Amino acid sequence: MKIDGRPYRSIWLDKDGRSVVVIDQTRLPHSFETRRLVMVEDAAHAISSMVVRGAPLIGATAAYGVALALAEDPSDANLENAITLLASTRPTAANLRWALEDLGRRLRPLATDERVAVAYRRAAEICDEDVAINRAIGEHGLTLVEEAADGKDSTVNVLTHCNAGWLATVDWGTALAPLYMAHDKGITVHVWVDETRPRNQGAALTAWELARHGVPHTVIVDNAGGHLMQQGMVDLCITGTDRTTARGDVCNKIGTYLKALAAGDNDVPFYVALPHPTIDWTLEDGADTPIEQRAEDEVLTITGRDEAGQETKVALTPAGSRAANYAFDVTPARLVTALITDRGVCEASRKGLLTLFPERGGEASSS
Amino acid sequence: MKIDGRPYRSIWLDKDGRSVVVIDQTRLPHSFETRRLVMVEDAAHAISSMVVRGAPLIGATAAYGVALALAEDPSDANLENAITLLASTRPTAANLRWALEDLGRRLRPLATDERVAVAYRRAAEICDEDVAINRAIGEHGLTLVEEAADGKDSTVNVLTHCNAGWLATVDWGTALAPLYMAHDKGITVHVWVDETRPRNQGAALTAWELARHGVPHTVIVDNAGGHLMQQGMVDLCITGTDRTTARGDVCNKIGTYLKALAAGDNDVPFYVALPHPTIDWTLEDGADTPIEQRAEDEVLTITGRDEAGQETKVALTPAGSRAANYAFDVTPARLVTALITDRGVCEASRKGLLTLFPERGGEASSS
Repeated sequence: MKIDGRPYRSIWLDKDGRSVVVIDQTRLPHSFETRRLVMVEDAAHAISSMVVRGAPLIGATAAYGVALALAEDPSDANLENAITLLASTRPTAANLRWALEDLGRRLRPLATDERVAVAYRRAAEICDEDVAINRAIGEHGLTLVEEAADGKDSTVNVLTHCNAGWLATVDWGTALAPLYMAHDKGITVHVWVDETRPRNQGAALTAWELARHGVPHTVIVDNAGGHLMQQGMVDLCITGTDRTTARGDVCNKIGTYLKALAAGDNDVPFYVALPHPTIDWTLEDGADTPIEQRAEDEVLTITGRDEAGQETKVALTPAGSRAANYAFDVTPARLVTALITDRGVCEASRKGLLTLFPERGGEASSS
Repeated sequence: MKIDGRPYRSIWLDKDGRSVVVIDQTRLPHSFETRRLVMVEDAAHAISSMVVRGAPLIGATAAYGVALALAEDPSDANLENAITLLASTRPTAANLRWALEDLGRRLRPLATDERVAVAYRRAAEICDEDVAINRAIGEHGLTLVEEAADGKDSTVNVLTHCNAGWLATVDWGTALAPLYMAHDKGITVHVWVDETRPRNQGAALTAWELARHGVPHTVIVDNAGGHLMQQGMVDLCITGTDRTTARGDVCNKIGTYLKALAAGDNDVPFYVALPHPTIDWTLEDGADTPIEQRAEDEVLTITGRDEAGQETKVALTPAGSRAANYAFDVTPARLVTALITDRGVCEASRKGLLTLFPERGGEASSS
């Protein structure tokens, strides 16, 4: 998508053909800066410190991380070390594991002198595949936005949680792709943007993306969505997901479950947009998803732009207070109206997913 | 309750016998400061700027505000002006309206030279009545905490939203009163404290209160409670309310509804503690409660303590982003396990409330 008229992806190979450049998402929305990743440790740190975040972009960064490691040392030991290091950065994201397994499977059989070129080529392919996947999600989701717009003269109001926009992917986004397409097609879309504490990816990233693209939006606190739905001010919800189980349970940013409950209580459609690598066919019950716990400092403090324009971290609680910081929750399939995948829209159930992914029939039923 | 071993109320008459002192709750948890209210305008400003907040404390402050106005000028015109001014400060709080109606009814028939003494006396009574009410709520609610503790060797985990502690009342608090009593009685209570964006009354006030009293607690973002309930980490929820309808619908701080939905979905008891003046017998359907919209700046920014110890306001969104700021939502009675009132515990329904307030039978059924 575009920033000030110039097309960008969220990750790209630098001109030197070896190092990788990403947008530093920890500096948004106050400052637009890029970071060069030169070594595998840079890639791992970019993921764990959330310079890059969003399941698809994490997968792409991990793939390039393997390439960076092999450019340094293409040995078997270093390949395994790199995969282990990168896998340890974020325990919940399915794309991370998927990308590392994909790279490992392709690279292990190769002679060491062949590995670097293949790793870079495969990382670039993963990026291009992600763009194609998100474009397809956008096209399938667009039909649901058009349905919501049908017969309405007024604005289609959409609530989203966290950031599942182009910054969370390589381009287009997942949950936001249908909204960008609807907006570009002339449908009047207005987005309620959950701020998404503790890291405020909604207030910081989703609002920034939408503003840059010119999509009307309003930031709300995470507490507000239920009231808006009760008042008929939300036509549909769309979120992304970090991992979807074979029966359609959805693990996504903490608080997603609360919005899904409110949507269910108010007959508001609740859609989850997902690229197919986000589906964990080995997992049936969402309750079995490992939930990452992050540092309590993310809850006890917040960073923003002070009146002098400087980024400043401020403490929110009494000195000595402790916090808990669970990064994700699981929304049971029964609360999800439909899944929007790159292969089409389906019911959030094993049956629904198998209509789109029939080749997984054996796998899913045996798990 | 006590601050550093010294007993306090949240509002008291100054030594001069005329002006009124309150704790400035906008400065907590970083700084403990008091404010003297000398004129009715000071009282109105203290309410509207949330130097004082919480339905019972708003009522008490409004009562003293009328006394301050009459001390200046006890005329009919000034009495009505004061009531109008104070009534306009916060549209949702039922206690505000209740206190002003109570004062107006008592003062209008009096000669102007009798009004000042009666107004101060009645304001002091309203404060004492609030303390007695909250003590009674605490005693009734304690039985529910004891039930949750019964047969458990381990901690009773309680989730609360916003601040319905002693700072929200004159003393004891509503939702927190049972927890203080349980803690003092030796029951091991641990409180999950929702931070309660946008004004963070949980992270700032509830955490501060509990820390000063020594009650174990953990601050969480508003998004986290659903996950905790799914994981069996919450034994019961208790919140306060700003207005309860005759059929038991509960208007409280924005986000309460989302926690009630999660409690319902996970069979966690959801209790609402309320002093009887919070009941609006003229209102049946919670959806008819007027919902205050506050300044968008409360969402776009947040104030905390920077590394130098200074209170600093920081911007959270891209420059130019807009926000919506609904202060309350309505939790339907069907999601409330029971109401804890100063007269006892009852079902959240008209029938339940009438078992405790039989004298309201005619009123409620005629509305």
